[in-house]
Amino acid sequence: MMDSFDKLYGAIVAKRLGDPETSYVARLTGKGRGKIAQKVGEEAVEVVIAAIQDDRAATVSEAADLMFHLGVLLADIGANFDDVRAELDRREGVSGLAEKAGRKG
Amino acid sequence: MMDSFDKLYGAIVAKRLGDPETSYVARLTGKGRGKIAQKVGEEAVEVVIAAIQDDRAATVSEAADLMFHLGVLLADIGANFDDVRAELDRREGVSGLAEKAGRKG
Amino acid sequence: MMDSFDKLYGAIVAKRLGDPETSYVARLTGKGRGKIAQKVGEEAVEVVIAAIQDDRAATVSEAADLMFHLGVLLADIGANFDDVRAELDRREGVSGLAEKAGRKG
Amino acid sequence: MMDSFDKLYGAIVAKRLGDPETSYVARLTGKGRGKIAQKVGEEAVEVVIAAIQDDRAATVSEAADLMFHLGVLLADIGANFDDVRAELDRREGVSGLAEKAGRKG
Repeated sequence: MMDSFDKLYGAIVAKRLGDPETSYVARLTGKGRGKIAQKVGEEAVEVVIAAIQDDRAATVSEAADLMFHLGVLLADIGANFDDVRAELDRREGVSGLAEKAGRKG
Repeated sequence: MMDSFDKLYGAIVAKRLGDPETSYVARLTGKGRGKIAQKVGEEAVEVVIAAIQDDRAATVSEAADLMFHLGVLLADIGANFDDVRAELDRREGVSGLAEKAGRKG
Repeated sequence: MMDSFDKLYGAIVAKRLGDPETSYVARLTGKGRGKIAQKVGEEAVEVVIAAIQDDRAATVSEAADLMFHLGVLLADIGANFDDVRAELDRREGVSGLAEKAGRKG
Repeated sequence: MMDSFDKLYGAIVAKRLGDPETSYVARLTGKGRGKIAQKVGEEAVEVVIAAIQDDRAATVSEAADLMFHLGVLLADIGANFDDVRAELDRREGVSGLAEKAGRKG
């Protein structure tokens, strides 16, 4: 069974060049990279707020919105969730510690 | 084979109550929800900037950082990536259109 | 002549408890702290994007939006731009260097 | 007496082309537009978090950080706080209502 994030991504790719009248993804994509990126930033802010408000359900819901818009952004730059997974795996291989994923430089 | 995001999450859960001296996850978790959420916001801003700069590799790298810190935040609020997947699946079921995931209200 | 930021703030305070039907400030304020803070985050993301796109006019315009929503948020928490000015002045006094304002800890 | 925001801006302009060894502003400016914009985004996230946590003092302090980095960004794009004031004044003139400043389109 396909992973839900990849199923989401597949749906995004299928829709992004579709009809802006009926497709939110096509409409957002048509507005350009700046607007897509803006949505990623906005959804992250909503995740932050829901988490600080200690609202578990809202945090999960906003995280779903964030994943959705992250998928639209990745598609727009010619990448996908597998590229992100590969980057995480690569880091783990390099460091021997999965948690190093979060370290810069 | 375990999905990379879930492997990452497993590593986060294993580390978060560990030794702050040696674990970034434990150190960040120890600083509290506010600091974890702040990192999610910061990494999202970095994704936004990399995407606007049309830097595919940097966008993927920052997206990996974002997923990592989103994992730390989800763990802190008692949720995981499967909760996010379930929310995405639920929306698709409701709407019959995966893309509706991004629509509010 | 009153500073434009303070004039803006005065207008915000005058409107925030007004009629939500006719006042955006009253409507936003009525939605609560979370929604006001969310707008501050969103406008900051728009400033970031406009600046990266090297669009001077858009950066100034989004900065105006940011100042507006920052004013609404300050009002909601019982503070104003003079409190922010006092904090900046205090830092300069402490450090003898205005630029220290940006340093943490 | 000069407005504190403009005094801050004057200090930023005086420092930005200075010695990165001794000046945070010069150091940040030297890292480029992306890094400056990133700081604006980060400080906004900190304002958001402080406000949601209902911490008035922290909100004012983070708002001061935000103004500082907004000043560095404006300087980098060749604008200043007076440009932002002019934009706010222009909107008020157009709408006859200062609060319209927050409305898009």
